[in-house]
Amino acid sequence: MLKPSLIALLAELTAGHIIPRQTDIDYSRAPPNLSTLANNTLYSTWRPKSHVLPTYGQIGDPCMHYTDPATGLFHVGYLHNSGISGATTDDLVTYTDVNVNSEPSIRAGGINDPVAVFDGSVIEHGINGTPTLLYTSVSYLPIHWSIPYTKGSETQSLAIARDGGRNFTKLAHGPVIPSPPFAVNVTAFRDPFVFQNPQMDSLLEKTNGTYYTIISGGTHGTGPSMFLYAHYGDESDNFQTWEYLGQWWHEATNTTWSDAGWAGRWGFNFEVGNFFALDQAGYNPSGEIFTTFGVEWSYAPVVPQVSGEHDMLWAAGKQSIVNGSLKFEPTMAGRLDAGRSAYAAAGKAVLSSSKASQKSGAPDRFISYVWLTGDYFERVHTPKGQQNWTGSLLLPRELSVGYINVIDNDLAREKASWRVETEHDNGTVTLATMQQVIAREPLAAFKSNTSTVMTQPGCIRSSGGTFEHSPKSKQYMFEASITFPKRSNTTKAGFEILSGPHETTKIYYQFSNESVVIDKSNSSAAASTNDWVLTDPESGKLRLFDIPSANGTEIETLHLNVVVDGGIVEVHVNDRFALSTWVWSWYEDSRNIRFMVEDGEVEFGEITIWEGLVNAWPQRGAE
Amino acid sequence: MLKPSLIALLAELTAGHIIPRQTDIDYSRAPPNLSTLANNTLYSTWRPKSHVLPTYGQIGDPCMHYTDPATGLFHVGYLHNSGISGATTDDLVTYTDVNVNSEPSIRAGGINDPVAVFDGSVIEHGINGTPTLLYTSVSYLPIHWSIPYTKGSETQSLAIARDGGRNFTKLAHGPVIPSPPFAVNVTAFRDPFVFQNPQMDSLLEKTNGTYYTIISGGTHGTGPSMFLYAHYGDESDNFQTWEYLGQWWHEATNTTWSDAGWAGRWGFNFEVGNFFALDQAGYNPSGEIFTTFGVEWSYAPVVPQVSGEHDMLWAAGKQSIVNGSLKFEPTMAGRLDAGRSAYAAAGKAVLSSSKASQKSGAPDRFISYVWLTGDYFERVHTPKGQQNWTGSLLLPRELSVGYINVIDNDLAREKASWRVETEHDNGTVTLATMQQVIAREPLAAFKSNTSTVMTQPGCIRSSGGTFEHSPKSKQYMFEASITFPKRSNTTKAGFEILSGPHETTKIYYQFSNESVVIDKSNSSAAASTNDWVLTDPESGKLRLFDIPSANGTEIETLHLNVVVDGGIVEVHVNDRFALSTWVWSWYEDSRNIRFMVEDGEVEFGEITIWEGLVNAWPQRGAE
Repeated sequence: MLKPSLIALLAELTAGHIIPRQTDIDYSRAPPNLSTLANNTLYSTWRPKSHVLPTYGQIGDPCMHYTDPATGLFHVGYLHNSGISGATTDDLVTYTDVNVNSEPSIRAGGINDPVAVFDGSVIEHGINGTPTLLYTSVSYLPIHWSIPYTKGSETQSLAIARDGGRNFTKLAHGPVIPSPPFAVNVTAFRDPFVFQNPQMDSLLEKTNGTYYTIISGGTHGTGPSMFLYAHYGDESDNFQTWEYLGQWWHEATNTTWSDAGWAGRWGFNFEVGNFFALDQAGYNPSGEIFTTFGVEWSYAPVVPQVSGEHDMLWAAGKQSIVNGSLKFEPTMAGRLDAGRSAYAAAGKAVLSSSKASQKSGAPDRFISYVWLTGDYFERVHTPKGQQNWTGSLLLPRELSVGYINVIDNDLAREKASWRVETEHDNGTVTLATMQQVIAREPLAAFKSNTSTVMTQPGCIRSSGGTFEHSPKSKQYMFEASITFPKRSNTTKAGFEILSGPHETTKIYYQFSNESVVIDKSNSSAAASTNDWVLTDPESGKLRLFDIPSANGTEIETLHLNVVVDGGIVEVHVNDRFALSTWVWSWYEDSRNIRFMVEDGEVEFGEITIWEGLVNAWPQRGAE
Repeated sequence: MLKPSLIALLAELTAGHIIPRQTDIDYSRAPPNLSTLANNTLYSTWRPKSHVLPTYGQIGDPCMHYTDPATGLFHVGYLHNSGISGATTDDLVTYTDVNVNSEPSIRAGGINDPVAVFDGSVIEHGINGTPTLLYTSVSYLPIHWSIPYTKGSETQSLAIARDGGRNFTKLAHGPVIPSPPFAVNVTAFRDPFVFQNPQMDSLLEKTNGTYYTIISGGTHGTGPSMFLYAHYGDESDNFQTWEYLGQWWHEATNTTWSDAGWAGRWGFNFEVGNFFALDQAGYNPSGEIFTTFGVEWSYAPVVPQVSGEHDMLWAAGKQSIVNGSLKFEPTMAGRLDAGRSAYAAAGKAVLSSSKASQKSGAPDRFISYVWLTGDYFERVHTPKGQQNWTGSLLLPRELSVGYINVIDNDLAREKASWRVETEHDNGTVTLATMQQVIAREPLAAFKSNTSTVMTQPGCIRSSGGTFEHSPKSKQYMFEASITFPKRSNTTKAGFEILSGPHETTKIYYQFSNESVVIDKSNSSAAASTNDWVLTDPESGKLRLFDIPSANGTEIETLHLNVVVDGGIVEVHVNDRFALSTWVWSWYEDSRNIRFMVEDGEVEFGEITIWEGLVNAWPQRGAE
């Protein structure tokens, strides 16, 4: 997660207001240095319409999600304006700001959090039955895993929802977790995630329904950790007392689950750890233990306070008591999103009783929102005044346990983002992995609410070519599939999007390193005059397994779901892979979709394009 | 200790300035309601000249004493103006404010102490060899043992002496002791007292020279406690990490060492605990373990936030490991000062290398300053504007182990403020107790620096009578002795001081309850028009033992040392008892000293009066 500097916070506090917009930019001509434009002129240029982001200003980590027991509305929260802002939804498609102009429900500046408010997590039936936030209250900055930790800089404090969540009122007492564990030289100690888990109750011999929290961080010199605490005492304690139960999970410094790159790096420090249990249908307290978490790592040599690589990962595994304390050991791990700007996901168990689930008929789910940083973790200088917003959340995703039956060969047998669940006597194995898909409600809405549905017939191709019908806008979703007849290390196949005379963005799969790639080298004409427009490719590893077929074996088909929403491109593949990024396409005529095939022949299935998406913020008025 | 309210702190902050004084009060006429007088008119009326108090305003607990290794000067500190102020002394007689107008060296209002700064203790060779303050940083008020404790209200933080102690700069990190022990429902958690102790090192198997701190408080429902912490890690830790070692001392709620009243009550909550080791000469790290401490107790029923009785006690005892943790068990306990306004004593080991000790040739000592609250713990409304100062410290006292050889009878055999140290085969026993005397330097200075020495011959008397020579002022010290031929429950013998046609204050001993009494019923003509002038008697238990004599047995002689310094009266008896109070004597002619004997005949030894005392603040100019 990005921890904004105090100066940045103050600057944002004073600068955060709505600026009248100008609309006289000519998108048929090459862009200037965009920082020379008047304020607010780029507000609409890349602004997504179906995603969660504040009316203006910078969005940080998603957090503070909850279903309000009083209304059944699901609240989505995110760091914003030195605090945490929120919006409600009854359908996971459209949202309503809880406060005008997305103003925060809780802000830094209190006795416990004089400097900053970092991520928090909500106990839905909290103090007196009211949603209660456990959040990181910050007293000292800077904080970074690459520098000595300032004692007392992060503590965990409580606030209670008032007025339907418009305000989270800080309780008039000190932090309930006032320090990291005794004498542990932490790299960070933040982002509490509160949960209940019967397996934990049983292993720890705790009362059923005990509340736990993991707090993310690590230890200097030894590696990233998640620290486990349990609420201590009965309901009358009002969540004031939390008992430290040890490091639930610890990995050695700068190591990785997979040198082949299936799961990024464990790095130096964990952030935004979520804990939840899943089965094939979704959230199940008795299911398998999963965690999503951000990691901070670095190329060598580490540069204090500068080194800042990030991976957004998930892991599943087993819990057991080791030497008297509960330890987590992964059995598989992967990337929740392979995009380099995708980070700091925050999820929540959304039960079938939640209003959106009641409307859609969904079962208990675990739904996660991934953050897409708008300025690459403050490492690039975007024209913030001109755009007047920075960053967004990605579409909500449903997480579950996914199974796939594949041929039992070397491709299946690797320490990676899946594991062998069952060996069959017919030469196949069932693999388990984490399934992740765009939440059913927005997916359905994009398909049903759109005015324009286009289809492109399937075909076998060995070269590129423009679709018969391309979108007229930069807001659409399309589904496609590609079947590869053979594994050729030189074959690349996929699509070009936001494509036109001056610009194009390639999304393709290649066997050479088993990756989904977004080639942004020619995505934006703005790149030549704006060095913040990054042109490096985005990519993530995805294995297409050998699967049994009528003819014996075939290569698993690549199923793509691509959402283009202004500057956001989300690529979802085979219900188990996501790669999201910003594409700063400039020209008005960069709207075509094209086939792309290099060095090989592949079969494209019929492609369907749903143009228009859905305005997620109908109550904000025209933007 | 008095924990000022936030409003009071703010009021003091704005009101604290020097007001021109008026001097037109007629002390030969009955006083009016003093709150009707102009501001500052009473500044000099009762102001002591030889005591430690700020130039103006309210003084709170003494604390933050230390000898600066760089100068050898001893620093005396005290709560004042939302912070801690200090003064230096090279002779324990005269003092120099470290800041103009006694302004604090450290003030509330930082990240760790937004609401208040409470008592702290100095590590003389602290961080980088610099005097380092460990103090109670306060984030929430109110705090009182009679109400639920607000989590996080008191933490312990560090500050470093700069500029010779003119400033104590807070370190830019959080509290080093960020909370009370886990899940302990404390009544208070404050007033850290840092020390080294070889016996503790040995019992706890710690490195020689380990720093410890006790923190005073208690636990709701179970009683007062001192919590023990040890510095954890080596010098490079810079006192950032303190390990909790358990409750070094705990007593059951609302109990007492002695129902006969030798040691007040343990009460509900401990405050200002000091830890030190003494032998007969004074401070000796290998000596017997002593503690001084304040207790908060209440008559029944307890009234939340109102109940507020205080005792200022000492105890000596043994340390041992019980169930793995170090426990203190008293072998004797008593009152450090029996005055009801005397409280919150803070002491410090003053080594022979300290400048004052070098000048006087004193050995290593433990010197304690007792606070004399000027408004009875804010329970009376004194005319603060008129006086423009409130409260004082008492004269510094040297503490040591005292021994007395007495007849081995029932008088010697009691659980009290002494214990039987050695039994002899001649029918006597040697008792041990805590010896306390006015520090040798001020005692000597009062005798040598004075212009007027008067003596009153010894005599046998059975009634009162005015001294031949009485002081012309209300600033003097006298030494006297009284020998009682027999123990008569109706005999009272002593002196009247500040005595005149309208007022008199009686100081006497009586066998009926073995007490030294200060009868203030007629001490002040102001009492009739000013209800804050308390007229209740002050008293404390003192036993006069049977001691061996040429004739077999006689009653131990009462040796009195009485200091009158403006409104302060300190009565020191037999090197082991002190009773200090305010006497608001009004009339100019209330200056006589008289014998007092009721219902018996006693022998007075020669009395010496040293008038004038010493101006403790020569650099402040005329007051």
